Amino acid sequence: MSNKKTISKMDAIIALCKRRGFIFQASEIYGGINGFWDYGPLGVELKNNLRDAWWKDMVQCPPIGPDGEPLEIVGLDSAIIQNPKTWEASGHISGFNDPMVDCRESKSRYRADHLMVFKPNSEDMPQDHFAFMEGEEESVYKKLKKKAGTSKEQYSTTTFPELDPSAYPLVWGPEASEQGTLTEPRQFNLMFKTFIGALSGEDNTAYLRPETAQGIFLNFKNVVDTSRVKMPFGIAQVGKAFRNEVTPRNYIFRSREFEQMEMEFFCHPDDAKTWYDFWVETRLNWWKSLGVQSDALIKREHADDELAHYSTACADVEYRYPFTGDEYGELEGIAHRGNFDLTQHQEHARQKLEFFDQERNEKYIPHVIEPASGLTRGVLVLLCEGYCEEWVPKTDEGNIQLAKAGEPVPEGYELRTVMKFQPRLAPTKVAVFPLLKNKPELVAKAKEVYQKINRIWPSAWDVTGAIGRRYRRQDEIGTPFCITIDFDSLDDETVTLRDRDTMQQSRVPIKDLIGLLSEKLS
Amino acid sequence: MSNKKTISKMDAIIALCKRRGFIFQASEIYGGINGFWDYGPLGVELKNNLRDAWWKDMVQCPPIGPDGEPLEIVGLDSAIIQNPKTWEASGHISGFNDPMVDCRESKSRYRADHLMVFKPNSEDMPQDHFAFMEGEEESVYKKLKKKAGTSKEQYSTTTFPELDPSAYPLVWGPEASEQGTLTEPRQFNLMFKTFIGALSGEDNTAYLRPETAQGIFLNFKNVVDTSRVKMPFGIAQVGKAFRNEVTPRNYIFRSREFEQMEMEFFCHPDDAKTWYDFWVETRLNWWKSLGVQSDALIKREHADDELAHYSTACADVEYRYPFTGDEYGELEGIAHRGNFDLTQHQEHARQKLEFFDQERNEKYIPHVIEPASGLTRGVLVLLCEGYCEEWVPKTDEGNIQLAKAGEPVPEGYELRTVMKFQPRLAPTKVAVFPLLKNKPELVAKAKEVYQKINRIWPSAWDVTGAIGRRYRRQDEIGTPFCITIDFDSLDDETVTLRDRDTMQQSRVPIKDLIGLLSEKLS
Repeated sequence: MSNKKTISKMDAIIALCKRRGFIFQASEIYGGINGFWDYGPLGVELKNNLRDAWWKDMVQCPPIGPDGEPLEIVGLDSAIIQNPKTWEASGHISGFNDPMVDCRESKSRYRADHLMVFKPNSEDMPQDHFAFMEGEEESVYKKLKKKAGTSKEQYSTTTFPELDPSAYPLVWGPEASEQGTLTEPRQFNLMFKTFIGALSGEDNTAYLRPETAQGIFLNFKNVVDTSRVKMPFGIAQVGKAFRNEVTPRNYIFRSREFEQMEMEFFCHPDDAKTWYDFWVETRLNWWKSLGVQSDALIKREHADDELAHYSTACADVEYRYPFTGDEYGELEGIAHRGNFDLTQHQEHARQKLEFFDQERNEKYIPHVIEPASGLTRGVLVLLCEGYCEEWVPKTDEGNIQLAKAGEPVPEGYELRTVMKFQPRLAPTKVAVFPLLKNKPELVAKAKEVYQKINRIWPSAWDVTGAIGRRYRRQDEIGTPFCITIDFDSLDDETVTLRDRDTMQQSRVPIKDLIGLLSEKLS
Repeated sequence: MSNKKTISKMDAIIALCKRRGFIFQASEIYGGINGFWDYGPLGVELKNNLRDAWWKDMVQCPPIGPDGEPLEIVGLDSAIIQNPKTWEASGHISGFNDPMVDCRESKSRYRADHLMVFKPNSEDMPQDHFAFMEGEEESVYKKLKKKAGTSKEQYSTTTFPELDPSAYPLVWGPEASEQGTLTEPRQFNLMFKTFIGALSGEDNTAYLRPETAQGIFLNFKNVVDTSRVKMPFGIAQVGKAFRNEVTPRNYIFRSREFEQMEMEFFCHPDDAKTWYDFWVETRLNWWKSLGVQSDALIKREHADDELAHYSTACADVEYRYPFTGDEYGELEGIAHRGNFDLTQHQEHARQKLEFFDQERNEKYIPHVIEPASGLTRGVLVLLCEGYCEEWVPKTDEGNIQLAKAGEPVPEGYELRTVMKFQPRLAPTKVAVFPLLKNKPELVAKAKEVYQKINRIWPSAWDVTGAIGRRYRRQDEIGTPFCITIDFDSLDDETVTLRDRDTMQQSRVPIKDLIGLLSEKLS
């Protein structure tokens, strides 16, 4: 649950992302559009780097399987709009719903399973039940204190669906105050509808895909027929998906347009449990290999009552986001889907989707293990995990310390904000500075170095302000290395190489730069 | 206009793309969905390579400007769904229409400006006017010959809108035959509609973007405020766009869901013409640099009456696709858009979108040059340009010759199909073969080589069939190099390196492979 400290970390990250061009509100000049986000110059590079890391580690150089051989995984890019029968077969038309309630007074809409209720603990108090959105307790407590002089201890909380919605008002939001403003929960389908062709009617209704996975199942037969794959094998896809969320929130965590990285791993039914275990560990370790190594990352096996009817096991890789407080939110789900999807499509499309396994001399519908993660959610994790406030000594004395929230910066120290992205993921790998911008010979030399490096790694060029300020600007966007060209560089062909994390500087010959950076950046 | 020979080249490409996993019909198991395509394992790699080449040459290492300095261009990734006011301002809600006509009998719908009409040349003939789709003349001639015993010479053609649609029947399509089955042309908006939130009504209507460009204009101010850009500069974006085409056709050329690579280059109004000329040349040369060097690629300046009212100049980079016959179809457009878009958004959003130019000490709304190309259309050009049928000698005697359509393969030669992708764009860079699959020591050695190379470049592994057949399989998907490990490899640590285009083989030490391939693939 959220509290002041964690909310302000999230606010700081959001502010940095806006200020430095990672993430903007979509259509901001038109007052925005709820649940949609644009990725700015740095955000698109960070997102592309995460996408490319996944693709390289999943498709080009897939993990080594239990037999010591690399797995076989191929890529795919299917259309966002597919034949609507796809979503009948997958169950999304009948079952992809969220329960929602409306406030009759404010006309606002809420996800019923995200609403919480305050209940007074004592009979002496007014018997109003206050509904509010999950994660907003603290603000509501404050409001109640101000309005009624009550305290936190005088209430207990419960989830909304347990109570009769007509029995209490909606407190959260500026408008509501009357008794019984909330409607009964109703089911609301999350797929965005559209219409193909010039007539809009039910016969040409189509949907924006709510997941990339089904595009993979649709192409199972095509891939088997054209790619000489043997069982087990995977098909991987990165792409946009759309969900008409009732209450998009928590920045890019729950947005209406987002990107997924999904892989369907097809295997013999007898091997499915083994592959499920394999993929749960492999995916958790992959996120760790990207530098998400804090105890904020956990694995959580779903309880039986959380599983879809066709699924025998599912685990989430979860992250403790700043807005989840001491709890965790999903980053990736690894689901044992059995043969549900292929069986459904086989039935609805009346096309055999069996695989003939030559080695076993057996025909079967394979079982599927699905590691499915959010690319945009992954970007959020990288931002949250990378974001760091540090106290750094102003002189050579003293060590870098983690800043303590709410405490003043100690004497002799100053605060720096640094994004500790792994070099592989950093939007900018290297920044190059001429010491002074009005010395043409320095600028020319620096530009020569910059252009050589930028041909290999996306690099930044900055001539403005003192070197210390330029370092801080690069720290804030997570650039792992800065290179300064000074007057000595003109004499001895060396430069200063500065490390983002240690802030150590060393003198390096220009001719060794590429080799040295290759090592450090790989 | 099309003829038998060119149609069959296109058919051959489509068949190869399906057979080898480049491109599949979307939702094929459900009978497809008109105007949507899926990219298979090889197609997605080819498309990603083209996307990455554009991004690298546009954003990371942008072209050198007239002053000898690299231009400044940053990336962006904006949402597909934006605030609908965007499309009011851009003019898409009122003006992004195609004229369509319906056949009352067959219920089919056609783009009026893609319909053609056959008119009998002589008064002795039945005075029916036959309407058909552009590019389908040959098939209709055939049909008329069969049905009425007439010949090509007895008709002349004209475009549809010049005639009264009620005056003649629709001949094309299996159904139509009666007089006057076509309706008057009506305007049809090409944007896909959807609805945000749980109520579907006009107040929450949104649109799938019909172009990525407007997302760039929406973020102009954000980028200026956060990225320290100076005039002139560009903002580049790659992403999906959607157009509810009345008659999607010509494979992936005109589809309803497609990908664009667009860049908006902002500059001082006085410099706009210079930058327009610069970008027309630069973009044409870029496509040439990707190996599209045949005379099938041309530049075409738009005539004045083709220009949008706000535009002072526009040029297309066009390609002679197999289905355009001797004519050309668009690949990329370079438009001088003036300050139309920013002015429109400034007005509709009531937000100043002026730029303060420090160097000139002047405030102005910049003018814009827009090089906009289709990523998926680019893929089509690479496929058409790369596709090649050759007669290759069966022995060491003789030279490779371009196959002559319709002629038999000469004695001593055989036919090969080869995709001559530039190495930079080829989905698979290298294929590695052990000479025999049942010799564990060969397989182990080959696997060692394969894994080393595949860590650097996406590579293929093939153990099945004679080496000659394996070469042909790789030729067909455009793999530039094949490496064979044989018994000599075990003794002397050398392999056979075979070049796709020359089919020459040479013996190379394993330790030199990476260096040699680096040179050849860069």
